[in-house]
Amino acid sequence: MSELNDVFKFIDEHFDEHIQKIQSYLRQPSVSGEGIGMHECAELTAKYIENLGGEAEVISSPIKYAEHPGWPLVYGWLDSGADKTLLVYGMYDTQPVEEEKWDYPPFGAEIHEISPFGQCIIARGAINTKGPLRAMFNAFEAIIAVKGRLPVNIIFLIEGEEEIGSLTLIDYVKKNKEEFREADASWMAGARQDRNGKVRISLGNKGIITFDMICRGGDWGGPVGRNLHSSNEAWVESPVWKLIQCLASMRDETGKVLINGFYDGVTPPTSEEETIINELLKTFNEETLKEELSVKRFKYNLKGRELILQYLYQPTLNIMGIASGYVGPGTKTIIPHEARAKLDIRLHPDQDPEKIWKNIQNHLLEKNFRNVELKLHDASPGSKTSPNAPIVKAMLKTYDEYKIEKQIWPFSGGFAPTFIFTKVLGIPFISGGIGHGGRAHAPNEYIILNKTGPIYGISDMEKFYVKFLYNYAET
Amino acid sequence: MSELNDVFKFIDEHFDEHIQKIQSYLRQPSVSGEGIGMHECAELTAKYIENLGGEAEVISSPIKYAEHPGWPLVYGWLDSGADKTLLVYGMYDTQPVEEEKWDYPPFGAEIHEISPFGQCIIARGAINTKGPLRAMFNAFEAIIAVKGRLPVNIIFLIEGEEEIGSLTLIDYVKKNKEEFREADASWMAGARQDRNGKVRISLGNKGIITFDMICRGGDWGGPVGRNLHSSNEAWVESPVWKLIQCLASMRDETGKVLINGFYDGVTPPTSEEETIINELLKTFNEETLKEELSVKRFKYNLKGRELILQYLYQPTLNIMGIASGYVGPGTKTIIPHEARAKLDIRLHPDQDPEKIWKNIQNHLLEKNFRNVELKLHDASPGSKTSPNAPIVKAMLKTYDEYKIEKQIWPFSGGFAPTFIFTKVLGIPFISGGIGHGGRAHAPNEYIILNKTGPIYGISDMEKFYVKFLYNYAET
Repeated sequence: MSELNDVFKFIDEHFDEHIQKIQSYLRQPSVSGEGIGMHECAELTAKYIENLGGEAEVISSPIKYAEHPGWPLVYGWLDSGADKTLLVYGMYDTQPVEEEKWDYPPFGAEIHEISPFGQCIIARGAINTKGPLRAMFNAFEAIIAVKGRLPVNIIFLIEGEEEIGSLTLIDYVKKNKEEFREADASWMAGARQDRNGKVRISLGNKGIITFDMICRGGDWGGPVGRNLHSSNEAWVESPVWKLIQCLASMRDETGKVLINGFYDGVTPPTSEEETIINELLKTFNEETLKEELSVKRFKYNLKGRELILQYLYQPTLNIMGIASGYVGPGTKTIIPHEARAKLDIRLHPDQDPEKIWKNIQNHLLEKNFRNVELKLHDASPGSKTSPNAPIVKAMLKTYDEYKIEKQIWPFSGGFAPTFIFTKVLGIPFISGGIGHGGRAHAPNEYIILNKTGPIYGISDMEKFYVKFLYNYAET
Repeated sequence: MSELNDVFKFIDEHFDEHIQKIQSYLRQPSVSGEGIGMHECAELTAKYIENLGGEAEVISSPIKYAEHPGWPLVYGWLDSGADKTLLVYGMYDTQPVEEEKWDYPPFGAEIHEISPFGQCIIARGAINTKGPLRAMFNAFEAIIAVKGRLPVNIIFLIEGEEEIGSLTLIDYVKKNKEEFREADASWMAGARQDRNGKVRISLGNKGIITFDMICRGGDWGGPVGRNLHSSNEAWVESPVWKLIQCLASMRDETGKVLINGFYDGVTPPTSEEETIINELLKTFNEETLKEELSVKRFKYNLKGRELILQYLYQPTLNIMGIASGYVGPGTKTIIPHEARAKLDIRLHPDQDPEKIWKNIQNHLLEKNFRNVELKLHDASPGSKTSPNAPIVKAMLKTYDEYKIEKQIWPFSGGFAPTFIFTKVLGIPFISGGIGHGGRAHAPNEYIILNKTGPIYGISDMEKFYVKFLYNYAET
């Protein structure tokens, strides 16, 4: 792709300026959880789109969180007169900062050595993900400066609530599908090399349901509003026993979930997925994984293909937490008047979270646990993108051009609200890019500046984005 | 019993002095949980015995608690040349004080009005139980001043750890039975009238086992030493699920405990107990009880005799508390690496706690819950005293002389270490006396000074103790 050499030369010549632009973005705080700098950062992001010659809108959120209002979405449009339209998804918000734990100011974006990576920009958002997002704008600016226009049209959708649940984004996309009707595919720019230079690609993710289960004393029995001396347990019901029995009724000792219909919608691997899994098995190592996860044993002592299938294709019912009564030193002989548990369900991408939630509710009615209250937090489906989608092929091709060792997964076990692209808008979604950073969600978050061994620096990250855009335009 | 009128006259004449002695005892702090004033109060208590003409010893504790050493026992002996020897059990320790919540200084023992009881002494320990204990010494002093000697010999055993588990007391009695071989019966002085002037008498109490159950990730599976992202629950075991399944295996949904041998040693009511229960049913009111306990319904909707039998004769397996992972606002998608529960078992007085504890351990082995750790805190048997024991007859006779409305229970559902008297020493035990106080374990603890309606004041409390001692001597 020698016709891009002029763009690459431009990027090299403007390296210092590009780094300064990244630093400048990182110096604008945007902590969604604490509501710091959100409107300012949204406006700044909108300006980046306008600087490319696009149109941008800062859209107020209709969402009300418990501690703050929702934060604005940045919606933008850049018409390049191209055939294809790419929906660029991004986030301008970051995790909170615990200032005193940082060696350098978290919004200073200072450049310091971090062994073994050499010089790095240190700031909240450096890798997750304002650093790569601004590098993408640098890449777009370089193309426009040299070529006059991008090879694809772009719809920008950059949210300020990625770290707090994306409610505004999900609401907006569901209600405004027509604004995205031109989009052929969606992409999130990242710097996704690990410490060894490898990249993990997931072509989708599982769905999620999160909810609370609460049992309190009431008309059915149990102490009402205050704990009782435990001698009364002989004649008074116990809400914590009730909750435990309700939980135990939902799952057997092997881990199988006993809720009717819980496995409805689980599909076996498609032939495309089988191909991916067979390829994945060549680099999958359960011993390394045990160390990474700090576990001594996997369920049922599974290995290889069976372990991967268990991880991806089995929905789970997990207890995030449970609390009742007294667990401090010594004893406090009480019947607690209240018990609560917090659970999450991980769904196969083809499962319908609303149906599964109904099944949970039915289980409690059928098993006569009407005295256990259910409180839903979230029920969102998973997502899958075909490995044959042009956007995926363009991404894989670009990785190959950089000789990046990659591990492809049919989808990931975690959750991200990518169903808004694949299910609501019906377009494929991929996340990707080269470069490396770390300590996301921790002090001294960093992104590395220059190529170090197999890990690429920021100028290559920008060049990768350029190549990827052209590769996609050509598919 | 007109020959006691001179003693009663003495008590009336020395009322102010007696109150001052009570105040003086209450002004000496003795908070066992926090280790405040313990040695000073033990010495003071020993001096009270010596002032009667007895011998007293302050015995150091061999026990080491987590936060402090054990506190001394006060052992004393007063030979009256009488036929009968009474073991007087008492406690010189109190609950801690949260100073800022009191209207008057907790160790000031000031006298103030408390509606509707008139003048009261307000102090930590006023009712529980330094007030009644010192009133008992006043009564003994009065008898000796007037009659020259008590009608029974006394062995004093006054502990400083009643509020923290009585470990020193239990250890001492088990190891020094010969010191108590003369004792015919044991008694604890109290001011046991409720707000309506009624008295509840329990001729024993249930036994107790308290223990922790802990499950952590380890060789069997689960995250080791740190929480894991909950997407991993598909292939990694969950310690909190394991604990919940272990708990659920121990008890069915009706409340029946599924541990083999859990009900071993439970005996049906004896004919003596049947008589007591039939009498008890005349004043037992489950509706009032519901209100007192703040419950809307008893287990299995039981009433009357069946409810009393359920309360007293059924051992229970209660969860005092459980904790694992995250239960704060929102969600934290983790598999917790550890889960812990705190349980207590209430045993029928005839059950053997050591056998039951073995059964619990066996259950975990048999049901393959080797990954759930058991940690025993306490395993102590219950206790029963025959209604035909002379000490009981003397107590009931004394109550009748004061026309006190009394409700007798075969034994109570709570625990007190009275097995050291009934089982270790083989002598009957009774607690009793008239008078009233309240807010034990709470701010503004009080004991009422003068007779108010059916509730007797402190001079009658002392006279009651005098009568009771003579009634016992005469049985």
